[in-house]
Amino acid sequence: MKPKSTATRRDVLKFLAAGSAAGLAPAAAAAALPPAADAPKWAGEADVLIVGSGAAGMAAAIAAVNQGSSVIILEKMPFQGGTAAKSGGVFWIPNNAWLKSQGVKDEPLDAMRYMARLSQPVRYTSLEKTLGLSPAEYDLLWAFYDNAAKVIDALSRQSALKPMPWYTWEDKPYPDYYSDIPENKVHRGRSLVPDSSADPKNVVWPRNGGAGPALIAQLSKGLEGKKSELLLDHRVLDLIRNESGEVVGLSVDRGDDAPVNFRARKGVVFATGGFTHDPVMAREHLRGHIWGGCAAPGSTGDFVHIATRAGAVLGNMNNAWWGQIPVEVALKTRSVPVDVWSTPGDSMIQVNRYGRRFVNEKIQYNERTQAHFTWDPVRGEYPNLFGFMIWDARTAQHYAGYDPIPAANAKMPQVIEGATIDELTTQIELRLAGIARHTGGYTLDKGFRQNLRESIERYNGFAAAGKDADFSRGEATIEIAFQFMNASKPPNPHPNMTMHPMSSEGPFYAVILGAGTLDTKGGPVVNPKGQVLDAQSKPIPGLYAAGNCVASPAGQAYWAGGGTIGPALTFGYLAGTAASAEKTRSA
Amino acid sequence: MKPKSTATRRDVLKFLAAGSAAGLAPAAAAAALPPAADAPKWAGEADVLIVGSGAAGMAAAIAAVNQGSSVIILEKMPFQGGTAAKSGGVFWIPNNAWLKSQGVKDEPLDAMRYMARLSQPVRYTSLEKTLGLSPAEYDLLWAFYDNAAKVIDALSRQSALKPMPWYTWEDKPYPDYYSDIPENKVHRGRSLVPDSSADPKNVVWPRNGGAGPALIAQLSKGLEGKKSELLLDHRVLDLIRNESGEVVGLSVDRGDDAPVNFRARKGVVFATGGFTHDPVMAREHLRGHIWGGCAAPGSTGDFVHIATRAGAVLGNMNNAWWGQIPVEVALKTRSVPVDVWSTPGDSMIQVNRYGRRFVNEKIQYNERTQAHFTWDPVRGEYPNLFGFMIWDARTAQHYAGYDPIPAANAKMPQVIEGATIDELTTQIELRLAGIARHTGGYTLDKGFRQNLRESIERYNGFAAAGKDADFSRGEATIEIAFQFMNASKPPNPHPNMTMHPMSSEGPFYAVILGAGTLDTKGGPVVNPKGQVLDAQSKPIPGLYAAGNCVASPAGQAYWAGGGTIGPALTFGYLAGTAASAEKTRSA
Repeated sequence: MKPKSTATRRDVLKFLAAGSAAGLAPAAAAAALPPAADAPKWAGEADVLIVGSGAAGMAAAIAAVNQGSSVIILEKMPFQGGTAAKSGGVFWIPNNAWLKSQGVKDEPLDAMRYMARLSQPVRYTSLEKTLGLSPAEYDLLWAFYDNAAKVIDALSRQSALKPMPWYTWEDKPYPDYYSDIPENKVHRGRSLVPDSSADPKNVVWPRNGGAGPALIAQLSKGLEGKKSELLLDHRVLDLIRNESGEVVGLSVDRGDDAPVNFRARKGVVFATGGFTHDPVMAREHLRGHIWGGCAAPGSTGDFVHIATRAGAVLGNMNNAWWGQIPVEVALKTRSVPVDVWSTPGDSMIQVNRYGRRFVNEKIQYNERTQAHFTWDPVRGEYPNLFGFMIWDARTAQHYAGYDPIPAANAKMPQVIEGATIDELTTQIELRLAGIARHTGGYTLDKGFRQNLRESIERYNGFAAAGKDADFSRGEATIEIAFQFMNASKPPNPHPNMTMHPMSSEGPFYAVILGAGTLDTKGGPVVNPKGQVLDAQSKPIPGLYAAGNCVASPAGQAYWAGGGTIGPALTFGYLAGTAASAEKTRSA
Repeated sequence: MKPKSTATRRDVLKFLAAGSAAGLAPAAAAAALPPAADAPKWAGEADVLIVGSGAAGMAAAIAAVNQGSSVIILEKMPFQGGTAAKSGGVFWIPNNAWLKSQGVKDEPLDAMRYMARLSQPVRYTSLEKTLGLSPAEYDLLWAFYDNAAKVIDALSRQSALKPMPWYTWEDKPYPDYYSDIPENKVHRGRSLVPDSSADPKNVVWPRNGGAGPALIAQLSKGLEGKKSELLLDHRVLDLIRNESGEVVGLSVDRGDDAPVNFRARKGVVFATGGFTHDPVMAREHLRGHIWGGCAAPGSTGDFVHIATRAGAVLGNMNNAWWGQIPVEVALKTRSVPVDVWSTPGDSMIQVNRYGRRFVNEKIQYNERTQAHFTWDPVRGEYPNLFGFMIWDARTAQHYAGYDPIPAANAKMPQVIEGATIDELTTQIELRLAGIARHTGGYTLDKGFRQNLRESIERYNGFAAAGKDADFSRGEATIEIAFQFMNASKPPNPHPNMTMHPMSSEGPFYAVILGAGTLDTKGGPVVNPKGQVLDAQSKPIPGLYAAGNCVASPAGQAYWAGGGTIGPALTFGYLAGTAASAEKTRSA
């Protein structure tokens, strides 16, 4: 499948009008042919229309063509792959084929307990049949457990994906993000990546694992020679419903003077992004303030508006896949290139506006980010709104290139420098003054300078002893897995590899970090088939969805690396399959 | 205006079918007459239909009849008054007539700064024209400042409300909830109550202030002799829109076999509740878990579904008017009778599952409640999910009857007793075991017993010294105002009246507290006229709303006592006025 690029939008239009198949596989051309040549009511037509070309959309498309359906993928952006293409490309798959090949039993109830415990921590209880979840929530989680490995197997069989375990710098399969809680019985090997040994340019992980681009490239192969077409720069505006209220098409803005209509004979699958990049939606829904996120820039919550107008009910709107991001970068570009995965370094801490540490710097991004949301009800302020990551020359050297630390000899404008702690503090104050109009005039507390010195001294004691009495840094398995980017391991004579005393001498460095997302994970509520539900929990006929645009069954949890894309692939595939099994509806 | 009670629902139906005016003012009968006697398309008809009979709905109704419109108020519950009738009846009105009478200048920019600073603390900045808010947000706040006193004056002139300042036990007008921040220039007297000196049964505040029932009773007088009717037990299901998409009526369930239709010639004003009592909506939207709330039981978020189907956009869905509530009461009755206003007592503390204090027990409910939401990202748990309020015999005696402390000689099942701290701890553990299936099996930490002893010892030192080094208890003006229920002031020889050392001897008492709401404050976004807006910020013709069912301009703030009802009255009145000024639409 060859995506149509921005440059060819008018060409696509011309092609559609003329019925020409130039440059496209015959089947794809047929799928896109308008019903009438003179005054086409439909600018395109397929059995299944898919909105979004990320992991969920691609999986849905593959599932649909596998059932013999024709597919058109409408992508809002001028590039393919959505947020998945920017991502680590990891997909978390319980009970996967690799685990089985190793003789590891990932028992259903164990996996369900792990997922439920983290997704709904207030309500989780092992004492009930549905583990404290509603039957609908339980069914969704079960559908994930029950189908995830089957979907990956199906994609593997048709060469649309070549999965392999995701390996740490220790050459071990990755642990889950909460591998140490009692509900976790399978500690390593649920997180998979696309094996890119045959495509070395996409290799980014040790032992040939490829990241997001490799994932999208592999999935694209699954559509080759099938009745599918990808149309870039096609923004879906609304549903087209017939007199019975069934969804039979989409109104689409492709840059013409007026929207055009696309016909879906069987159904529509939305696999668009969340709402990270609609700042108003983010503010009015999320449980904490974000400054931006990694999501592809098209993730502006369009589907929330489109689906609620059709009667959809919203879920999980308060949660996101959280990630710390450099605030100054986000203020320039809300769709930031990367988040701060594990705060890199060992002679490094993060402090708040009082110069006090406020979080375990090494716990995974999803949890760490939520420390920014703490509200001080006495002072009436967010004391951790910003985290000031502070490091010294040792960390700058040994962890160069591990975001947000610049690569050797590289300069990054968001990095603040000072020869002394005093000078660093002054420089941070200047930076804060520069962005004051975006931050409500947020300043350092007047005690910052002195407290920071004390915080470093206290931290240095912890580092020497190997024990962080305040935040237990370095005690969780995942923190060790995240400590190094690759097998090169900077020397550290101290007993806890995540901690090394900070130097008493400069230079010192800082970056202003704040809350962000990989993307949000709330939206219309769906059932295990991906059908979008109304207020009476009845499916809206013809309307399917999966991925970051729907209410994630993960709730508030980030189970492990790939906890995002694993469900996206699984539910995308299920939605594509179900839509494809519908009979043709009359428009 | 005489409300129709549940018992008369069939009678109302009969009346509507027959066109009889028995028991109703002639004008009201005319308003409710169906268009045709044989097969009425409309079960009732008025210029303006109002949904909900709380503070916002009553204000809207008064505004509409003042303009000469006929009004039907459709109330879902079998009683009038909504959550306002259960409330303290306080309404916060900047620049009000009483302040003016005292020569106090409540300058616009000062009031705007105070409101904006607390409503949007992350974005607030005094450096910008709109104070860091969007123009739409600013306009809403401005509309409140500019109209609140005018609305109260108008209601006073027509004898629909008799406002007086709300007085503390010190016989001073109440301070605002953040009266000590620099943005607050008018420290006392913005909070008003209905003067009930002529109606002593409704007097609940010192100096003749009446609470919620008095407010609703006074507002009801404003409709006497006007073209209005109140229909209880009428649940609105959906909008009826004409071919142009204008709202021209409502589909209503009044207990018949099928819904009936009510016609709105000019417009519809929703003044319904929030979504506190839809546990799923609460979970999927709010920024923290709640166990229930004080909202009237009908507050199940109906308007969110109704309005989004018509294209409305949602705002402020993550926030609520927070209040601590007794968890065991909420598990029996989600709509709890009362919240814990100021944690009563002086020889009293609140601790979390570790036996550690986690909040200033005396700060106002809205802020204190949010301490329950703290997520510990290292342990992966909510350490403050429950607050265990612990008190001794002194507080039990001197603060008897001040919720959640039982009145003298009264027993309340949610109160836990122990002769010693050890026994109290054991009893708390038993209670937690009893509710385990609702709480994910939440338990005390094994260190609770020992830590609680230490916490009491540390607290006792603070109490003796008069200074709470951990949470600054008793330092804010509002904490003093909330310390006593009335002018009787228990003796306390220690320097901080909010703190007295706890006894070393039992009996000891405890109540399990958790997060709740007065109600939520998110919903469809409106403009200053109360028009409900779509995704393009265009009004949905004929659709108005105010009160807890819309996105509150207060954002995350609770400015002062009456921060709820002040805007409800103001924007209800504005919406009723604007709806009334529309021309008749064809159905």
